Amino acid sequence: MKKNTFNNRPSRNSKPQPKGRPAPFEGSPRGKTEKLQYPRSWRQVAGTHAIIELLNTRPKTVETVLLQANWKSSADLRELADLLQTKRIKIEEKSEPQLFEICKSHQGAVAFSSETLEFDYQNFGWEEHGMVVALDGVEDTQNLGAILRTSWLMGVQGIIIPEDRAVGLTATVHKVASGGAEHVPVHRTNQFSTPFEGLKKAGFWVFGLSHKATKTIYDLNIPERVVWVLGSEDKGLRSPTEKACDELVSIPQASAAASYNVSVSAALAMAETKRQWTKKK
Amino acid sequence: MKKNTFNNRPSRNSKPQPKGRPAPFEGSPRGKTEKLQYPRSWRQVAGTHAIIELLNTRPKTVETVLLQANWKSSADLRELADLLQTKRIKIEEKSEPQLFEICKSHQGAVAFSSETLEFDYQNFGWEEHGMVVALDGVEDTQNLGAILRTSWLMGVQGIIIPEDRAVGLTATVHKVASGGAEHVPVHRTNQFSTPFEGLKKAGFWVFGLSHKATKTIYDLNIPERVVWVLGSEDKGLRSPTEKACDELVSIPQASAAASYNVSVSAALAMAETKRQWTKKK
Repeated sequence: MKKNTFNNRPSRNSKPQPKGRPAPFEGSPRGKTEKLQYPRSWRQVAGTHAIIELLNTRPKTVETVLLQANWKSSADLRELADLLQTKRIKIEEKSEPQLFEICKSHQGAVAFSSETLEFDYQNFGWEEHGMVVALDGVEDTQNLGAILRTSWLMGVQGIIIPEDRAVGLTATVHKVASGGAEHVPVHRTNQFSTPFEGLKKAGFWVFGLSHKATKTIYDLNIPERVVWVLGSEDKGLRSPTEKACDELVSIPQASAAASYNVSVSAALAMAETKRQWTKKK
Repeated sequence: MKKNTFNNRPSRNSKPQPKGRPAPFEGSPRGKTEKLQYPRSWRQVAGTHAIIELLNTRPKTVETVLLQANWKSSADLRELADLLQTKRIKIEEKSEPQLFEICKSHQGAVAFSSETLEFDYQNFGWEEHGMVVALDGVEDTQNLGAILRTSWLMGVQGIIIPEDRAVGLTATVHKVASGGAEHVPVHRTNQFSTPFEGLKKAGFWVFGLSHKATKTIYDLNIPERVVWVLGSEDKGLRSPTEKACDELVSIPQASAAASYNVSVSAALAMAETKRQWTKKK
């Protein structure tokens, strides 16, 4: 599918952002809002579910939490504020436009964590089964967030994404992941072949999902350690990534006129892996 | 998961809409744009992929197509305009804010079709296998669109959604469905027990997806005709819907702290159905 230039335009009130870089923490360009500035290395976690999971897993990394000025009128935000007070975490009241600049669907709260989960595939303590997901250029925050959420619930141990040409772990990705980003570490690289080689040495098989393949994921005897590689929404797998895979497989579909959303494809591959592993036990 | 009052706020420039009703075709409240008015019975199909699938399947039902004024600068829109001219379909140039009022992610084009696909479960010519999806109050356009897209590719024959308390077939739903809405007919009712009874008479088994169930979809010997029932994002299945199911089943997950997105759950149930059917042949 081709990328349409009219697709996903930014908010009317936000400045266009350079591609591939996270949005800076600045106030609205309308000049009414105070500029917000926090260290760029801090992870921005938007949304109540995502923040609660952050507080449950690594509270000591939370530097500050921004709450929308009228937070007392929301039961969810009052509950969150109680939790923050119990854990003695700093709360800053900010205006809605200030939060909106960070994440359009902020749910009234944005937390900053000084810790980012790095997927260290070289020193990972693998057990019997291992599942890794590699995303070759996913550009949509909803898709990356959805894949993190499903990966958490499927027990995926790590995700590999590009450093350029792809969305990173933005506030919106955290919000959509609903806590998944606290459980699935991410490795960023522009050279997928390097982690693939490392993982192959650890006994992994690398399968690329491609509609070109005739063998389907259901024909496959899925090994105990597997990397699922998915392409970008519009272009699929790039040629060097395809070559770095052990084999290409497809997911059956009733019509060739469209394709599954990348987050659905990822979920189907993960589920079939879990199903085969559980059956064999 | 509880609904957060700060979630998914409407565009800064749009008027708040009464819940459960489609957005009227009006210009922006800023008063700069001409008011657009089309019959409410016409289906609004946004996005180039969705419109191309509409043109491929039922071109005679297309009443008019709105293209963004500067459409000639987009290769996708020029291609669409050529197709429309070949099929002698009326094109109207409109401003970007006018299209934005109809669908925020319009991709420069919105088509109007006078035909809506009604799922007539009582007079459906069922073959050996039948798969129906019932959505008990899905409120998010992205989720309904995603489910339509996956349903098309999985060969689902019909979808049942509520008349109230749920999102309908909006322009955005069509855009996200990427053509799925042209292939999967929809039945709207507030009384799910009526179509369930009708489908049970036609040999269907009705399974509700619920995290409360201990039996999983993978423990199930999925029958030849099946209805998958999914609850709303925040509340799950309502009690009367749960009672109308033959059995409740779950999808295994590694953590109980979250749940799969409803469009992911739907895809996993559909895929397991297809897998078991194909294996048995």
